[in-house]
Amino acid sequence: MRPDIPAVPAISAIPAGIRSLDAVFRPRSIAVIGASDDPTRISGRPIAYALRYGYEGAIYPINPSRSTVQGLPAFPSLREAPDGIDCAIIALPTGLVIDTLRQCADKGIRAVVLFTSGFAELGEAGRELQEAVTRTAREHGIRLLGPNVIGCYCLSRKTFVTFLGNLECVLPPGKPRIGLVSQSGGYGAHIHMLAMQRGLAVDQVVTTGNEADIEFGEVMAWMAESAEVDIIVGYIEGIRSKASFLRGLAAAHRRRKPVVLMKVGATEAGAAAAASHTAALAGADDIYDAVLREYGAYRAQSSEEVLDVVYALSAGKPLRKRRLGVATISGGAGVQIADFACAAGLALPAPPAATQQALREIVPFGSPANPVDMTAQISNEPGIFAATLDALLDAGYDSILMWLGPAVGNARAGGPIRETVERIAARRPDVLQTISLIGGPELVRPYEVAGCLLFEEPYRAIRALAALEFFEGVFSRPLPQRPDVAQMPLLEAGTAYNEADAKRLLACAGVPLPDERLVRTPEEAADAARRIGRPVAVKVVSADIRHKSDVGGVALSLASPEAVAETVRRMARAIPLRVPGAHIDGFLVSPMLQDGVECIVGVHADPLFGPVMMFGLGGVLVEVVQDVAFALAPLDEAGALDLIRRVKGHRLLTGFRGRPPADVPALARAIAGISRLAARNADRLLALEVNPLCVLPEGQGVVALDAVVQTGRTRLAQPSHHNHHD
Amino acid sequence: MRPDIPAVPAISAIPAGIRSLDAVFRPRSIAVIGASDDPTRISGRPIAYALRYGYEGAIYPINPSRSTVQGLPAFPSLREAPDGIDCAIIALPTGLVIDTLRQCADKGIRAVVLFTSGFAELGEAGRELQEAVTRTAREHGIRLLGPNVIGCYCLSRKTFVTFLGNLECVLPPGKPRIGLVSQSGGYGAHIHMLAMQRGLAVDQVVTTGNEADIEFGEVMAWMAESAEVDIIVGYIEGIRSKASFLRGLAAAHRRRKPVVLMKVGATEAGAAAAASHTAALAGADDIYDAVLREYGAYRAQSSEEVLDVVYALSAGKPLRKRRLGVATISGGAGVQIADFACAAGLALPAPPAATQQALREIVPFGSPANPVDMTAQISNEPGIFAATLDALLDAGYDSILMWLGPAVGNARAGGPIRETVERIAARRPDVLQTISLIGGPELVRPYEVAGCLLFEEPYRAIRALAALEFFEGVFSRPLPQRPDVAQMPLLEAGTAYNEADAKRLLACAGVPLPDERLVRTPEEAADAARRIGRPVAVKVVSADIRHKSDVGGVALSLASPEAVAETVRRMARAIPLRVPGAHIDGFLVSPMLQDGVECIVGVHADPLFGPVMMFGLGGVLVEVVQDVAFALAPLDEAGALDLIRRVKGHRLLTGFRGRPPADVPALARAIAGISRLAARNADRLLALEVNPLCVLPEGQGVVALDAVVQTGRTRLAQPSHHNHHD
Repeated sequence: MRPDIPAVPAISAIPAGIRSLDAVFRPRSIAVIGASDDPTRISGRPIAYALRYGYEGAIYPINPSRSTVQGLPAFPSLREAPDGIDCAIIALPTGLVIDTLRQCADKGIRAVVLFTSGFAELGEAGRELQEAVTRTAREHGIRLLGPNVIGCYCLSRKTFVTFLGNLECVLPPGKPRIGLVSQSGGYGAHIHMLAMQRGLAVDQVVTTGNEADIEFGEVMAWMAESAEVDIIVGYIEGIRSKASFLRGLAAAHRRRKPVVLMKVGATEAGAAAAASHTAALAGADDIYDAVLREYGAYRAQSSEEVLDVVYALSAGKPLRKRRLGVATISGGAGVQIADFACAAGLALPAPPAATQQALREIVPFGSPANPVDMTAQISNEPGIFAATLDALLDAGYDSILMWLGPAVGNARAGGPIRETVERIAARRPDVLQTISLIGGPELVRPYEVAGCLLFEEPYRAIRALAALEFFEGVFSRPLPQRPDVAQMPLLEAGTAYNEADAKRLLACAGVPLPDERLVRTPEEAADAARRIGRPVAVKVVSADIRHKSDVGGVALSLASPEAVAETVRRMARAIPLRVPGAHIDGFLVSPMLQDGVECIVGVHADPLFGPVMMFGLGGVLVEVVQDVAFALAPLDEAGALDLIRRVKGHRLLTGFRGRPPADVPALARAIAGISRLAARNADRLLALEVNPLCVLPEGQGVVALDAVVQTGRTRLAQPSHHNHHD
Repeated sequence: MRPDIPAVPAISAIPAGIRSLDAVFRPRSIAVIGASDDPTRISGRPIAYALRYGYEGAIYPINPSRSTVQGLPAFPSLREAPDGIDCAIIALPTGLVIDTLRQCADKGIRAVVLFTSGFAELGEAGRELQEAVTRTAREHGIRLLGPNVIGCYCLSRKTFVTFLGNLECVLPPGKPRIGLVSQSGGYGAHIHMLAMQRGLAVDQVVTTGNEADIEFGEVMAWMAESAEVDIIVGYIEGIRSKASFLRGLAAAHRRRKPVVLMKVGATEAGAAAAASHTAALAGADDIYDAVLREYGAYRAQSSEEVLDVVYALSAGKPLRKRRLGVATISGGAGVQIADFACAAGLALPAPPAATQQALREIVPFGSPANPVDMTAQISNEPGIFAATLDALLDAGYDSILMWLGPAVGNARAGGPIRETVERIAARRPDVLQTISLIGGPELVRPYEVAGCLLFEEPYRAIRALAALEFFEGVFSRPLPQRPDVAQMPLLEAGTAYNEADAKRLLACAGVPLPDERLVRTPEEAADAARRIGRPVAVKVVSADIRHKSDVGGVALSLASPEAVAETVRRMARAIPLRVPGAHIDGFLVSPMLQDGVECIVGVHADPLFGPVMMFGLGGVLVEVVQDVAFALAPLDEAGALDLIRRVKGHRLLTGFRGRPPADVPALARAIAGISRLAARNADRLLALEVNPLCVLPEGQGVVALDAVVQTGRTRLAQPSHHNHHD
């Protein structure tokens, strides 16, 4: 069995599964089963919206007790309706769903949107019913959105397979177009409403609910390929399938569409609430962070942040590194903005000396650094504003953040400020003008018209600009390459390897071992010690003993072959008394090492993402501060270097406080090797940990001092019904 | 000289200095020197505001070229104006300021507000001029606000000694009244405007500008004692005097007035901008954090956070621990809120079993935990809302956070939701109802009228509620007591102590030392080793050698008296060759210790706050992760325990991973002792560090293994002109 590595298809190769979603998201005809004549009821709204917005396909209300529904001819049952229907909406009680699905199949319908709730979100009983729904849909080749969904709509195609309440007001069309995919119906509707209030052009909304069939990642992939979507916004409670999720992220990156995601359930309390709400497994939060980072998706912490970032993206202008100039009318605001920028990793490079000189002449009392303090003097001499902005543009800043507070409403300065901003907007359309200001709608409007980004709170402006810089970085580099793992050995399933065997596996993965010997007798041990020729350690080797030192199975710094022989003799006698039944495979005689930095390299067998590499440094850093970083396996050496640099403690490797710099390239090679071994055995690897992995000074490599490998059947090894359409 | 410890005066004892501010903030008459007839100009606005808002005192415009100013009789010079003027506004060029101050003194004026800029904010030249201003004011007993200020106003007293532009619109009176004190005029005006836009009742604004005389802390203290202020909001760039700042914080705590502060310049970039903007020294950010925490002030990171917290405080209802119930109409929102609450340290206790049962009956598909998920079903059965809220109130939750998204605008549910909220507001005025919703002003208004807190973004609701809980904690306990330090030894100034002398000082402070001997000769050393009777360490003792191991001055684990003698002989020979001229005071022979947790206890001689205790654990935790905590010296043992618990690594002391629990009470005693020694010597202590301080297992105490003490003249030792009115 091949490990679960996401294939990155070539541009032309859109998976067939994605195209099968067209019937859901671009239906040419829709049957509404259980259609209501009341346009405000759940089963009435899709018809009302279709009529209001001018859906161009056919709508077939199915209702046994009415001849018309909202003025459309109704059909007593699906059988009576015309053939060739693309998509059916089911809004019936749970007990009728399976039968209705079969009727859909009989009618040749390929797509169903199942509004009904009362399935897996209720627990065990509902889960069984939902599995039956999934089976029925799959047996008949039906793609199914739901159950427990609000549905989906696409404004520019005028398709409304949804009862989303927000559509009762007028939708703002526009560009760039936003595709919103949410696992939660309620929260999806909320973000949608907020986006509309901000005037953001949401063109598509899809809620995936319980995901009995169509999953979040598939919808992302579909939106990535859809001409109607420029920016993808997502709301995640828990992802069900790694492959489709990564494929969705990769597709969006390939199409250069920014992805802005919220993933809730970050904390234990949150995860508990998530588990009671959906049937999804909430993956460990750090691992989501690592995956999203790797695939270039922006993770927002709140809907406010989602919308701020999307709003900034909507300006359609990138923020290149070190090109942001800041001008304020208050030194205090400048200090704050500098603080925020520093925390967000956004550089504010100082202007060249000539520009500083020019700025000093413009405002002698101000500050010519970046942020430039134009001071409150601007209300006496409004010309300061234009002169400052021109100086910054001349110096090459092509993104300007202005903190103007209430100044745009100032009687003297308001006009000149507006004219300057409008002039720059007209002559330098490449320049992004972001303004932190306060004032009523009439003051704000001209700046909106000029294409400025407006934020009241400078913190939020900085956060949004940092997101633009993030995406600029994301799209300037390819997604990480996954190295080939076919050459790696396949482990035996269901085995606890002893230390010596575990280390042999590491050696196959290219991880250096100490110059140690596995011995059986005191005499062999003395001989090994003699050949090593310096102080040694002796460790018992047994797959049945996990904590060797707890049972007296470790002895350090033995200086003479006699002491080594005596130690082995003592262990061979004492350990079987302490751990009756443990099979002792022998003893390792290893040279004592000095001068290394101890690291831990582990593999976490994540039930969703499969083998995930963990790296950390030094005992307390891992144990107390949890200073560790994660990355999906397999990694190449560049990916491993990135992983190493993401822990705070990595400074210990680079010659910290007079210590010699450690052999970081060798460490990266070792991590990459271990990651390939882990990926090759994704379906069976339960635990792999090298602790400590000792990193020697530059040029001297690394040594795996201890290792644990355990195999079994991972969750990934179970056949997943989610993958048949991947 | 006594260390600089803030005295906490008894309630009745308002410092005379504070009362002297009445002439600035409550003047019975005001002269405007350089008064303009134009009500929009800086020197015209104070008169215009006084006229518009009906100032009840007398206003005397001083203008040599006009007989009236804005309809008031003007005087050609101050001399011609009537006597008995409380306060003068000076809005003249810098060159005229000193002379004008003298004229004010001649006229018997006790308070001046100096609008003029061009002083210390310009650097060296301006600083000298400002010092001259300070000297002149002090010579003549004038309290001075400024220079470089927008001034101050008090709405309820109708005094307007300011050119703040925001006062051109109508101010919202109301309760609770907010006092805003800002070092930055521009940012102060900005926060003021935002607060007004939110309908918050700002009754006083004071900007302190360059603080040539009146400082931030004094204004806080004045507001704490002022009947017109209920909540103090402050904006800080850098505090100049510890004593007046702490006195201001303590006064606010004594009067149970919440203090919400922004302190900018947190990062290096921000601090650089601060230094170029004001003449203030930006204290290390961690230390500000520690001080504000200790004194119960809330530190906000942005003006948005300031206003959200003040808005929540304005409801006038506390949030007691474990009394917050959350109800949502979307499971996803509940998960998020649980995440946010967990991150903010806000407990969401589950309802009792009976309540859960009741909730399960109300919404079978929902979640009866806290957050309660009422589900979207609420739009079909609006009765769910009232039933859920009543169940929560019956269960004892007296603060309810509701996430309703767009539901308040729902045709079926909107009315019943509003009625329920209004009913609870009427019958249970003790209950704080906080609602996260979206909708237009007409939808929102009834909830405002009912006294609810409204937030669009749940993250911000949680942050504000956590602040309410923070203040509930702050006012439920007294400020920390400062132990007496008079018994502590006074150090000799300008001395670098050798290790043995430094340790003797620690012993005076009650810190246990190892059973070690200071010896001069190899024979004495061997004798000492014999008496210790187990392996020992030998260290050279010299005030001239800081890094003993670098010069071969440390030898560990010497097992025999002979080896000890030989080591001392070798050191005595070799070290003078490596460090020519170093005076060797002898050698310390100390027993080797095991089984302890190594800590670092240091004293940072902060130029603003004086001696600040630093505590950290383990080498890497301090060096790589900067896992340290700070607290003002002196501390009692309770304060020291709190300091210890604030580092992440403190888990290493409590029996982490099978290690024996360490003697934390002894550690707290040692820290408290060191802090008293430091406080006693605040005027001369440059450095004090015990590293490592070894914490032995429970009941076995601590041992100071090495120590550095260095004295000199600290900044605190210089006579401060800021303290004469303290």
